[in-house]
Amino acid sequence: MANPKLQIIPLGGMGEIGKNMTVIRYGDDIIVVDCGLMFPEDDMLGIDLVIPDISYLMDNKDIVRAIILTHGHEDHIGALPYVLKQLNVPIYGTRLTLGILEGRLKENNVSANAKYPVNAGDQVTIGPFQVGFIRVSHSIADSVALSIKTPIGTIVHTGDFKFDQTPVDGKVTDFHRFAELGDQGVLVLLADSTNAERPGYTPSERLVGVTFEEAYRNARERIIIATFSSNVHRIQQAIDTACKYDRKVAILGRSMVNVVNIALELGYLTVPEGVMIDIDEINKYPASRIVIMTTGSQGEPMSALTRMAMSDHRKVDIMPGDTIIISASPIPGNEKMVSRTIDFLLRQGAEVIYEAGTGIHVSGHPSQEELKLLQNLIRPKFFIPVHGEYRHLVKHAKLAQDMGMPRENIFVAENGQVLEFTADKGAIMSKVTAGNILVDGLGVGDVGNIVLRDRRQLSQDGILIVVITMDKQKGCVAAGPDIVSRGFVYVRESEKLMDDARDKVKQALEKCENGGITEWAAIKSNVRDTLGKYLYERTRRRPMILPIIMEV
Amino acid sequence: MANPKLQIIPLGGMGEIGKNMTVIRYGDDIIVVDCGLMFPEDDMLGIDLVIPDISYLMDNKDIVRAIILTHGHEDHIGALPYVLKQLNVPIYGTRLTLGILEGRLKENNVSANAKYPVNAGDQVTIGPFQVGFIRVSHSIADSVALSIKTPIGTIVHTGDFKFDQTPVDGKVTDFHRFAELGDQGVLVLLADSTNAERPGYTPSERLVGVTFEEAYRNARERIIIATFSSNVHRIQQAIDTACKYDRKVAILGRSMVNVVNIALELGYLTVPEGVMIDIDEINKYPASRIVIMTTGSQGEPMSALTRMAMSDHRKVDIMPGDTIIISASPIPGNEKMVSRTIDFLLRQGAEVIYEAGTGIHVSGHPSQEELKLLQNLIRPKFFIPVHGEYRHLVKHAKLAQDMGMPRENIFVAENGQVLEFTADKGAIMSKVTAGNILVDGLGVGDVGNIVLRDRRQLSQDGILIVVITMDKQKGCVAAGPDIVSRGFVYVRESEKLMDDARDKVKQALEKCENGGITEWAAIKSNVRDTLGKYLYERTRRRPMILPIIMEV
Repeated sequence: MANPKLQIIPLGGMGEIGKNMTVIRYGDDIIVVDCGLMFPEDDMLGIDLVIPDISYLMDNKDIVRAIILTHGHEDHIGALPYVLKQLNVPIYGTRLTLGILEGRLKENNVSANAKYPVNAGDQVTIGPFQVGFIRVSHSIADSVALSIKTPIGTIVHTGDFKFDQTPVDGKVTDFHRFAELGDQGVLVLLADSTNAERPGYTPSERLVGVTFEEAYRNARERIIIATFSSNVHRIQQAIDTACKYDRKVAILGRSMVNVVNIALELGYLTVPEGVMIDIDEINKYPASRIVIMTTGSQGEPMSALTRMAMSDHRKVDIMPGDTIIISASPIPGNEKMVSRTIDFLLRQGAEVIYEAGTGIHVSGHPSQEELKLLQNLIRPKFFIPVHGEYRHLVKHAKLAQDMGMPRENIFVAENGQVLEFTADKGAIMSKVTAGNILVDGLGVGDVGNIVLRDRRQLSQDGILIVVITMDKQKGCVAAGPDIVSRGFVYVRESEKLMDDARDKVKQALEKCENGGITEWAAIKSNVRDTLGKYLYERTRRRPMILPIIMEV
Repeated sequence: MANPKLQIIPLGGMGEIGKNMTVIRYGDDIIVVDCGLMFPEDDMLGIDLVIPDISYLMDNKDIVRAIILTHGHEDHIGALPYVLKQLNVPIYGTRLTLGILEGRLKENNVSANAKYPVNAGDQVTIGPFQVGFIRVSHSIADSVALSIKTPIGTIVHTGDFKFDQTPVDGKVTDFHRFAELGDQGVLVLLADSTNAERPGYTPSERLVGVTFEEAYRNARERIIIATFSSNVHRIQQAIDTACKYDRKVAILGRSMVNVVNIALELGYLTVPEGVMIDIDEINKYPASRIVIMTTGSQGEPMSALTRMAMSDHRKVDIMPGDTIIISASPIPGNEKMVSRTIDFLLRQGAEVIYEAGTGIHVSGHPSQEELKLLQNLIRPKFFIPVHGEYRHLVKHAKLAQDMGMPRENIFVAENGQVLEFTADKGAIMSKVTAGNILVDGLGVGDVGNIVLRDRRQLSQDGILIVVITMDKQKGCVAAGPDIVSRGFVYVRESEKLMDDARDKVKQALEKCENGGITEWAAIKSNVRDTLGKYLYERTRRRPMILPIIMEV
């Protein structure tokens, strides 16, 4: 092959928050950056999670060399338990990232054929690619950005990051490496757009520690902290402050227990002997000596905090005087659930610290000034904003343009678009299959638009089932019509309506009989139309109407 | 009757945003402040709106003297079309409030027996109550607070308000009247808690005018402004700025057309001759001379702006170069819809101005410093925070307490609680019926917990209907079992699963027959359990299973 092309193909993370996945292809070699899941949109009823469509990778499975992970968040690793079943390629990641992944794989009874742990600073050669791992700060420990040297030029992919000048573990972002890459020349930069709308700088994670201090100082009884289970640095700060104020720490919630165990094992969490206690031991100590770290900062219905708020937790009841710290911002879409949880906690007499802007939570993503610093360090020829709703990508693109980058060198791309680069040209060339694969229970991809459309209709006005038994020989009704409804009206108080509906169906059937209509499909369609029209007039509702004909 | 009691009973607006309604009773006389609706919570599937349960008023219908409206927002007047059908009592309100109400009543084919227009500054005697109307600023014109003199003492109810020092119409809040009432002595204050979490002052509505100026100056092509249809002052500012920049204004969206017409008729909007044009005329002018005012600032699926964004509007297509101003904040729960609308507008090449904190929208509710000023002006003996989620009420209560009010004089109440006051004592005494009445299409109250629970189950995993025709004489299966599913799996790709499911049902039926189980209820229950268990094992889903037995 004379002149292989360098292609970058986002399979997820464009125009959406989640399911981040980027394909990098040079000739007959592919590597993939991240493999994340997305939580379902409001209109994806009953769906548990969403993963990227990897048809393109399956069509090229023989040349996929590796999946490279930037960090251990679900939106970067969460699709692997599903993807590995089809495409079990080597995986590269830092130790904590692989540790967290291991837990997720085990839960799904999947195992990876080959996992290669790396450290920030490492360089790895995979086919024609030389991949470098660059330390960055983020809301999970052991996060890296990637430099990917290719025969055409160098790609830098930031993963998720922020420029925390005073990180909790003291491990500052590797500014020097970014500067060095910028000096050597970077062809394409792909950078995190999540906070591209926010002016200024994202505050340091340490700010949360300061706020914890104040909360601990004021608390008279138990302290309960809800935060993201993967935020090891924040958990460390909560534990450090507990030590200072002579409190014991108990961990509650499956995912937090898992991450804490992995982080302890791998040395990402440091806890003095005797500080951690089991959740069953909390009543052995006075309330003033207890901290409980827990999940549920998003008001998730099944989480530990929500169960406590609803007085529905097996082990912990909220007591008046408890100080509850919700160390998180609601993810868009979760505002109402969080608000409801706070209300229930307050009703139980707890003190609740939750307000945005008070330092009880900081973001893990870079604000505009950090994004500008990144541009100035990397000085890329081409720029692809990634990880964000469309408006975030547009804002990020404008920011680069305002800094002087030519508009034609910036690509606001959609999932599946193939971006092709030479040393001095870049263009969106074509499109490959990309999209959402919906996971519902054990089913991966078996729920599509038709099933979702039905669920939406069922959710709005319910269903009426009309059952008719027909006599095959006589060609007339042998039993029924019977009407059964669910989710439509409260039947006991709507007997008249249901009786009238049955009469309407009878009339429709008689009309069919008199008109010589004997095709089942035609009879069903008649029943559906007549009944639908009648019910809409009476109720202004459009339930699903399902005629079923049995034959005897 | 020796000593009638003064009672205040909130029937809505406590622990929720919306359906504001407060009962004030002295002996055998009741007046009601506001009668609002609430938009449904996420889990109220298919519900159009929610109104207060007025059982208490119906039980006392002979002594309800009047409903008094503070302003014309839906959460203060929107339940009247339903409530007036049962309880057609006299209504008091300012002219714009009654004008907007009139439109809503007409749409619902309801008419009020008696409507009494009042002006700010008026005093009206209703039974033992002397009701005074006090001018306040809010995001709708002609808003008033109420002073209600009773034989026990004076009540002040703020309605919704803010202390705008530079209101668009120049009509400043009647601080003097508040001060005067405070001097004379106020027994109970009920005050708006919506923004009780926000420090500082809410900016003046004029700030939006300044932002409009800048946007108009920069816009090269059409300007499309989406805002709340009832915000007459904001519409006025958009029109004033249009005049200044020599643009014509067209109004789009049913509710905005309605409110603008009423406001024009009643003189709340002032528009020079020749500025307003019909939406059908916009193409007669160059794009640079057009402003379109429209609805849809919340991303509502059926609204004009959303339809334009989706290229689905009959009259207006978005064109590259359009400047779209979303002059609103997303109401909690609407964030994702607004975000999606913005993304679609951007994809069409429009410039979209939407960001919070840029002065493109200001709240109509008072922040903490305004609430403190209110307390200092009114100096009430007792305080009831109203209009807010529970956490807003708690925050508002704390704010009053921090200002020196004794804790026992502050009541964080729930809907239906009866607060009883003498000249020097207040207490929560008992509880009356209060709650949510759900409106779905033409049905008011016919959808309750059972129907909603069914809708929720249907929305999550769909439904399987199992139809069996039984031979009455022989007691055996004459036809079926047939299985029909909706919203469960895509049937064409799951034939094996559905076949297996049918076999399972057959086995269950045989077992019943062999075991001598002939009760239909028992057979159904057997089928439901067997099939449910099997499907959960295979799919980890729990669809609704509905066995139907026909008899021939």
